[in-house]
Amino acid sequence: MSVTTGQIFLYEMLGSAILLLIGGGAVANVTLKGTKGYGADWFLITFAWGIAVFAGVFVAFRSGAHLNPAITIGLAIADKTAWSDVPAYIGGQLVGAFIGAVLAWLAYRDHFAAEKDPIVIRDAFVTSPAIRNLPWNVVTEVIATFVLVLVVLMFGGTPSNLGPLAVALLVVGIGAGLGGPTGYAINPTRDLGPRIAHAVLPIPSKGGSDWSYAWVPIVGPIVGGVLAASLFNILGVASLMPTV
Amino acid sequence: MSVTTGQIFLYEMLGSAILLLIGGGAVANVTLKGTKGYGADWFLITFAWGIAVFAGVFVAFRSGAHLNPAITIGLAIADKTAWSDVPAYIGGQLVGAFIGAVLAWLAYRDHFAAEKDPIVIRDAFVTSPAIRNLPWNVVTEVIATFVLVLVVLMFGGTPSNLGPLAVALLVVGIGAGLGGPTGYAINPTRDLGPRIAHAVLPIPSKGGSDWSYAWVPIVGPIVGGVLAASLFNILGVASLMPTV
Amino acid sequence: MSVTTGQIFLYEMLGSAILLLIGGGAVANVTLKGTKGYGADWFLITFAWGIAVFAGVFVAFRSGAHLNPAITIGLAIADKTAWSDVPAYIGGQLVGAFIGAVLAWLAYRDHFAAEKDPIVIRDAFVTSPAIRNLPWNVVTEVIATFVLVLVVLMFGGTPSNLGPLAVALLVVGIGAGLGGPTGYAINPTRDLGPRIAHAVLPIPSKGGSDWSYAWVPIVGPIVGGVLAASLFNILGVASLMPTV
Amino acid sequence: MSVTTGQIFLYEMLGSAILLLIGGGAVANVTLKGTKGYGADWFLITFAWGIAVFAGVFVAFRSGAHLNPAITIGLAIADKTAWSDVPAYIGGQLVGAFIGAVLAWLAYRDHFAAEKDPIVIRDAFVTSPAIRNLPWNVVTEVIATFVLVLVVLMFGGTPSNLGPLAVALLVVGIGAGLGGPTGYAINPTRDLGPRIAHAVLPIPSKGGSDWSYAWVPIVGPIVGGVLAASLFNILGVASLMPTV
Repeated sequence: MSVTTGQIFLYEMLGSAILLLIGGGAVANVTLKGTKGYGADWFLITFAWGIAVFAGVFVAFRSGAHLNPAITIGLAIADKTAWSDVPAYIGGQLVGAFIGAVLAWLAYRDHFAAEKDPIVIRDAFVTSPAIRNLPWNVVTEVIATFVLVLVVLMFGGTPSNLGPLAVALLVVGIGAGLGGPTGYAINPTRDLGPRIAHAVLPIPSKGGSDWSYAWVPIVGPIVGGVLAASLFNILGVASLMPTV
Repeated sequence: MSVTTGQIFLYEMLGSAILLLIGGGAVANVTLKGTKGYGADWFLITFAWGIAVFAGVFVAFRSGAHLNPAITIGLAIADKTAWSDVPAYIGGQLVGAFIGAVLAWLAYRDHFAAEKDPIVIRDAFVTSPAIRNLPWNVVTEVIATFVLVLVVLMFGGTPSNLGPLAVALLVVGIGAGLGGPTGYAINPTRDLGPRIAHAVLPIPSKGGSDWSYAWVPIVGPIVGGVLAASLFNILGVASLMPTV
Repeated sequence: MSVTTGQIFLYEMLGSAILLLIGGGAVANVTLKGTKGYGADWFLITFAWGIAVFAGVFVAFRSGAHLNPAITIGLAIADKTAWSDVPAYIGGQLVGAFIGAVLAWLAYRDHFAAEKDPIVIRDAFVTSPAIRNLPWNVVTEVIATFVLVLVVLMFGGTPSNLGPLAVALLVVGIGAGLGGPTGYAINPTRDLGPRIAHAVLPIPSKGGSDWSYAWVPIVGPIVGGVLAASLFNILGVASLMPTV
Repeated sequence: MSVTTGQIFLYEMLGSAILLLIGGGAVANVTLKGTKGYGADWFLITFAWGIAVFAGVFVAFRSGAHLNPAITIGLAIADKTAWSDVPAYIGGQLVGAFIGAVLAWLAYRDHFAAEKDPIVIRDAFVTSPAIRNLPWNVVTEVIATFVLVLVVLMFGGTPSNLGPLAVALLVVGIGAGLGGPTGYAINPTRDLGPRIAHAVLPIPSKGGSDWSYAWVPIVGPIVGGVLAASLFNILGVASLMPTV
């Protein structure tokens, strides 16, 4: 099933929009006052991000469903994606993440409008460190993304019968296990797209978009992905799961 | 495996009854005082609705297990269901949703009888907005149902080995991510059937059935389903998962 | 793969012991003071019972993994189990449930010994009604078990690739949706075996074993199973899922 | 697919590192002040350990993914692993568990540094009894590990389509059902590797590493695994699930 550059952009955009819509929506549901899910615990958020990936993978299956520049770069290093396709992947991912964040805002518009705390509003869009210490925040994102990319490469990197479910569960586990310090971007566009959305959307009590942190969830995940793909290459393992 | 109009009605009715019995029961379990699950958080409700769909899909497999007019109309637009079968599908879904709500009430009868708050009683039957603003409540239902129908169409719309599980997880994710503002009907009969049940059942402290809101979870999901199926047609993607 | 009467008894006993050990243990974990899981919500209990069934099904696969007289009788009515094998099934299930409850007590022995509230101790063994009204408690058990047996029959009743997982999820959903009023026995031996264990085990602060309620989780599940199997026969549907 | 002793060591090390990184990280996330998941309930921890095993199994598939001396010894007794390979398995598991604990500490370094309670710090590394009574703590670990090894042997002990998911769910169930008294090591290296890490890492407010308890999560799991494998041999059942 060959795929054109335009299709890569299109499907990565659609899948990433679904990813951010469900995942970002879940954060809004738990943190914005008065929603049905207000005050539910971290497990709901981690589980929702897992299913957000799951749904996004099905929507983007035609382009291979990377949905994450760290995955795209990791697959390129592992020789499973052409470097010439990387810009279309990342472009679609960024535009889609922006669209998904806008749709999540639309779904929760009145709750965003009623919220007075600018930190709560911003945290429904972007990741932020629990303890701000940028070099160590990078370390956390490197470690969490290393796990994501290494295990996804071990899955075979393609949808199989269990494949999208496996990735979903892995994302739940990374959120539960490694999301504590930084809210686990583990994906540059998952953070940057919504940060741009936060900057441009008309939300009454919003404050700044914390651009000084924006490089952390870009650099950390890319470094983590590169390290994981390099280890994968060194190991020389064949993928475990059959491709569709 | 051909299926008659009567079978469509019958199996959609059975499946929808199971759907509302488990899903509506879970809301009652969390919200009615003194139950074993009283005070559990939103995750239990979203997970239960996911499994409610899962169980309903197996019961209704012979009719294709739509269980939702938004799915039926979406599949008709995507040319996967005959328009002439649509009335039987929706009729079965509505009657089944009514029956399921009545059975959930029977299971929790003494808890409904002991409950004094008419809002709690009503919310165990129907969806309601956290912030009442009907046009925006429609928008939320459109977005949430768009995700449901688009991703289900991407699944292939038929039970496969992972199929019913995939739909279940998707429903959990939509509830977690997009259920905050309106309680996610994402299905006209899921709301209308129980609303009729609420209107007719003898419950001591029940108040009105809030008919002024009843059109929102009908119009929103249908619009969302139509938009998703239209996009699916424009994309022209084949379904990912094999049919049984 | 033919199976002897002795093997039926043996494997149903082993599987039921695993079922009660994990499921009963989870109730102890949430309700007995000072455990790691103390105070977790109803979702943990429902999820644990789902996996308890899952694990028990694998252990008892050789006998078909009924683990529940309501399932055994339902399968006999649906002509999938010989009536002459029913006593061995139910005997193994009862003995296994007793053993599992004893093992759960052993695992939590010091927590049971430290617990002063006889109701908490008893509820870690047996089911009990949130609102005591025996005829209506029977109705709730009938409805919940009807769902269990109908959907399991629809699954095909045998382990398939998704089979044990499907049953596990169904049990989670029934617990979440229909467990609120009575704690969902949905299985006569799940309640009777541990009730006998409660009666004979040396636990310092235990009170009576509430034998006046003991018939409810026997009669309700059997009636529910008979009704479900009868409907299944009337429908005449073939099972959806392939057998192993 | 033959595997060398060096590969066994390497892949068991990698998989065990992933196991401890996700699982240990989840405990840190829930218990260390100020993290995103602080105060979430026991379910998040049990679910995370399940996925930690899941991810570790994929990473270690080449060596068979034991990740646990109790599994390795159980498989040797069941004649599915050569006794001569056992040292390489256990060695890799111990080194990997140490590495995973160190990585989890790195990810949460600032939260560990900010934590003042030495018990909270230690419990993010190792298991500990809720009620200290070492012989009975051993009994709990024997029972919980017996369930793990027996059911895993029943699964067939090898990755299949559902295999890693089945093991993950089983671990969630054991944590929910049997983790209450001792925090369920059910794996000697899961406890010993992080205990060594706790002893050597520079953490400001850490206290002692409670070496007097260290033998319990070694002896209990080994005894439980031996008992389970012996029963499995006596039963003489073939494995249920197909190997890859």
